[in-house]
Amino acid sequence: MNLAGIYHRPESEMAYLYTKDVMHIRLKTAQDDITQVLLLHGDPYSLHSRPDLPKFYKHPTPMKKIHSDGVYDYWQAAITEPKRRLAYAFELTDQKGGQLIYADKGFIQPTDQKLLDDANTYFRMPYFQDIDAFHAPKWVEKTVWYQIFPERFANGDSTNDPTGTKPWDPQTHPGRQDFYGGDLQGVIDHLDDLKKLGVNGLYFNPLFKAPSNHKYDTQDYYQIDPHFGDAQLFKKMIVLAHQKGIRVMLDAVFNHIGDQSPMWQDVLKYGQSSRYADWFHVNQFPATYTPTANFEFAKDATYDTFDYTPHMPKLNTANPAVQNYLLDIAKYWVREFDIDAWRLDVANEIDHHFWRRFHNEMLALKDDFYILGEIWHSAQPWLNGDEFTGVMNYDYTGAIISCLINHELSSQGLVNQLSRQLMLYRDQTNAMMFNVLDSHDTARIMTVAHGDAALVRQTLAFTFLQPGCPSIYYGTEYGMTGNSDPDCRKPMNWHPDAKALAMYDFVHDLIKLRQKNWQLIAQGMLSLAALPDDQGIVIKRQLHHKQLTAVFNTGRNSLACQLVPIISQGLQKERLRPKGFVIAIQG
Amino acid sequence: MNLAGIYHRPESEMAYLYTKDVMHIRLKTAQDDITQVLLLHGDPYSLHSRPDLPKFYKHPTPMKKIHSDGVYDYWQAAITEPKRRLAYAFELTDQKGGQLIYADKGFIQPTDQKLLDDANTYFRMPYFQDIDAFHAPKWVEKTVWYQIFPERFANGDSTNDPTGTKPWDPQTHPGRQDFYGGDLQGVIDHLDDLKKLGVNGLYFNPLFKAPSNHKYDTQDYYQIDPHFGDAQLFKKMIVLAHQKGIRVMLDAVFNHIGDQSPMWQDVLKYGQSSRYADWFHVNQFPATYTPTANFEFAKDATYDTFDYTPHMPKLNTANPAVQNYLLDIAKYWVREFDIDAWRLDVANEIDHHFWRRFHNEMLALKDDFYILGEIWHSAQPWLNGDEFTGVMNYDYTGAIISCLINHELSSQGLVNQLSRQLMLYRDQTNAMMFNVLDSHDTARIMTVAHGDAALVRQTLAFTFLQPGCPSIYYGTEYGMTGNSDPDCRKPMNWHPDAKALAMYDFVHDLIKLRQKNWQLIAQGMLSLAALPDDQGIVIKRQLHHKQLTAVFNTGRNSLACQLVPIISQGLQKERLRPKGFVIAIQG
Repeated sequence: MNLAGIYHRPESEMAYLYTKDVMHIRLKTAQDDITQVLLLHGDPYSLHSRPDLPKFYKHPTPMKKIHSDGVYDYWQAAITEPKRRLAYAFELTDQKGGQLIYADKGFIQPTDQKLLDDANTYFRMPYFQDIDAFHAPKWVEKTVWYQIFPERFANGDSTNDPTGTKPWDPQTHPGRQDFYGGDLQGVIDHLDDLKKLGVNGLYFNPLFKAPSNHKYDTQDYYQIDPHFGDAQLFKKMIVLAHQKGIRVMLDAVFNHIGDQSPMWQDVLKYGQSSRYADWFHVNQFPATYTPTANFEFAKDATYDTFDYTPHMPKLNTANPAVQNYLLDIAKYWVREFDIDAWRLDVANEIDHHFWRRFHNEMLALKDDFYILGEIWHSAQPWLNGDEFTGVMNYDYTGAIISCLINHELSSQGLVNQLSRQLMLYRDQTNAMMFNVLDSHDTARIMTVAHGDAALVRQTLAFTFLQPGCPSIYYGTEYGMTGNSDPDCRKPMNWHPDAKALAMYDFVHDLIKLRQKNWQLIAQGMLSLAALPDDQGIVIKRQLHHKQLTAVFNTGRNSLACQLVPIISQGLQKERLRPKGFVIAIQG
Repeated sequence: MNLAGIYHRPESEMAYLYTKDVMHIRLKTAQDDITQVLLLHGDPYSLHSRPDLPKFYKHPTPMKKIHSDGVYDYWQAAITEPKRRLAYAFELTDQKGGQLIYADKGFIQPTDQKLLDDANTYFRMPYFQDIDAFHAPKWVEKTVWYQIFPERFANGDSTNDPTGTKPWDPQTHPGRQDFYGGDLQGVIDHLDDLKKLGVNGLYFNPLFKAPSNHKYDTQDYYQIDPHFGDAQLFKKMIVLAHQKGIRVMLDAVFNHIGDQSPMWQDVLKYGQSSRYADWFHVNQFPATYTPTANFEFAKDATYDTFDYTPHMPKLNTANPAVQNYLLDIAKYWVREFDIDAWRLDVANEIDHHFWRRFHNEMLALKDDFYILGEIWHSAQPWLNGDEFTGVMNYDYTGAIISCLINHELSSQGLVNQLSRQLMLYRDQTNAMMFNVLDSHDTARIMTVAHGDAALVRQTLAFTFLQPGCPSIYYGTEYGMTGNSDPDCRKPMNWHPDAKALAMYDFVHDLIKLRQKNWQLIAQGMLSLAALPDDQGIVIKRQLHHKQLTAVFNTGRNSLACQLVPIISQGLQKERLRPKGFVIAIQG
């Protein structure tokens, strides 16, 4: 038995309340090492206080191997306990029939009666505390997001265009400092189009007053940027969106503030004696830097910044005055405008204390509020139920792109990557993830796929079947192209040609399928399997009597496939061509 | 390479701020599998934004193998980062010279330049957030505790004795419901004795009004039990203790309340319409149970209780009214009486939300407050810096007893157990643990050792050299005996014979050694090694230029030993006899 490969961690993604009364328990073991895992579980006090009952460890529950990632097998069981207090351990059998029990005390022999009868031997969930559990807002499971970069989505009011606004040209390659006049009236004008597309969540890049076109260098968190509109227009947009069943998420940039903000200007003016001196991390006064040819770079700033960007001084969120300032902003937009979610920019560089306060205060205002963190690496510390609801799932979708589009990852490699990542989080958390294939921060998926629309469709379909919410970056429905920032921020294409319309129809159908089967896709058991010889991947989702089966051909040859598709590509006469896929649903 | 044995978890006991600017990074690998671990670490943004600098991964820091536990080797490095934001990964070399890098993205080849240059490949500590770190109150490192079970320590005022108080007899076997008249005046009378013994922290079992002799069935959290004294006398005792440099810790029983409390009485009287109905977990009204011959047992209570004890209904700490009620109590005793610490009874069965509030509110009153949880299993979820400062370290001391006294564990087995447990927590957390060999809940150590004073001394000495604070259960300094509760709660022996006095002198000397070398023992690097053939254990502690070396003979033959002892037992002519030990300090 590979003892070093056996791992469990109580009160984590490996032992958590899935619902008020049901706990999920997971174990990982070295891949192909263990043939059977039994979960011994029961009320710890019963061992001593209930001699009238059979010992709980005599009635174990078999665990199911639900994923493998090339290094580990992952086992899971769902159990309950009437007394709501739980002791548990794992009885392991290996290939050779060897048996051991893995418990809080370490590895023990299955024959060690004394230890088995001692409540302190076991892992513990001392009491089922619903208040500590991860609670997923129900509406999120049903949501397909649509991301709008406001300056580039639609210009509905030319009277608020910035000086030097360039003509609206979807083919252009925007410069870093260009303006195209997109605004909120443009969004209002197209709400019905979005409704028709089928999306029911809008994620807006920053709307607050800021000098740049991307607005991440906030100048005034309380003001809609005048080039986009005003508070009244924003309110109107939210009301209309809500009427159409569309939720609204705004982008909160709380890690740093723009250097044009009054607070930073005060620090520049008064130095150490500024009343905002403690709002930042100034390592040496005066706060200064040597400008370089690159507007967004300085290597010698005497204060902490985002990246090496001198115009984005980092806020000191350990300072209660800063906390209150930011939380007042966050509450203001929820209370006064009824927004449904915050997307938190550079969320990982802000302290956990702040995010816990943030979580508590947002949920107090709106108990189904969605909090989405921008975190590019694994995000366990933020996803325990008291900070974020989900994160931007770049790692997950990155693996999908790496396999389906770039072929850097084999189909087995993709299954391994996705399995590993799914096992980093609780099941209900996985359903809250924000699955983006592209965004304002990345090259567009069509460009990544070198213009291969079939590959893009296959990738979209694959992504739409995963736990978590898919998000469409504006223009993806028309197959827009664009390299990395700022090229991925071209003005929206409002005059699609036939090819763009074909992509639109596909995306529309995919959204419809996701909406119709939201529960199966959000909550269903997921199984992922690579076909032999890197030919493709089979996805299964199962919930109650409903089952989804999908086959993706990631190889070079066509595959036999007898599924009756709801949506497919490249399927002819029971043969699935390369880049093809089939989605079938039964029950 | 045993990939499944390699494990790291960011932002946990495996990656944490040790001081404001220094991070400890740990890795575990299958024992004897990996020969070298290099830590690649640096500012993640530098990879992209600082092409002028050499890549950080070209200048790794070697990690040190600090412990092995029979299954894993544990590696650690202490590093800093001027930008206070950190990306890191582990470069591993195995026995055969094979090399791999272990990172957030999984296992990657050391030659994979593309991944090495991508900040998203790495594990991350996105920013050094001192506010999120585990902060250890400095005074605790210097503290040797003394636990007082108030009803049995000393009777200083016979006028407050309960009816039916029995004569003070240290040899008696107390019944479950007996009273002996111990009180606070008795403690005051003996404060100088305690000072002389050398202890500088008093841990009191509950003092609040309650019907039982142990007072865990609280009736009034705001009142000192009249059989012990009153608020004024308690205040006097604290002031005197503080004058003598002795801190005071009280026992908070917040998981449940006594059934004689007005709240529970109200529930019994008014059922579901009681205003306290939501203060408890009543599964079915009326709240009732069938009494049994055992006063402390009912199997059919219709409400949640501690264990199966019908007289201790569990409080619903998710109810804000209950939270406020309990927190007001906790704050009252700190604010009005200046206590230094709370010991939290059955702390694991109360929710984390409550403990986070508790932590915040206690620390706001007293920024070096000590919070000690009663948790018998591994306690990671409570020891991340935002709940408890330490826990009662039963698992740790239990292993020591199991080896040194019971010989159920070999010396290598003990080294393994202690190593494994030390690696569950941050270094500064280990220094906050409460190391008890016995207490009101266990048999007395002298009885566990079947009256073998030499074994008890060896065990005490071993425990005093561990990270964490030792605690002397009243009477242990005189070698008192007693089986499990209630036998371990005999009246204190105030008339020690010669044998008892010999034990006193030893304990006194041991406390003096611990006090004089507190920094070395609290903060020094710990190394544990078993001697071959189960002969004994060598402990080393190192801090700056100071080093402690101790040898414990746990075998059946004498050992050669040339150490020059500060304290020893069984050492003669450079031979250390069985049950003997030597403690030497250099520098």
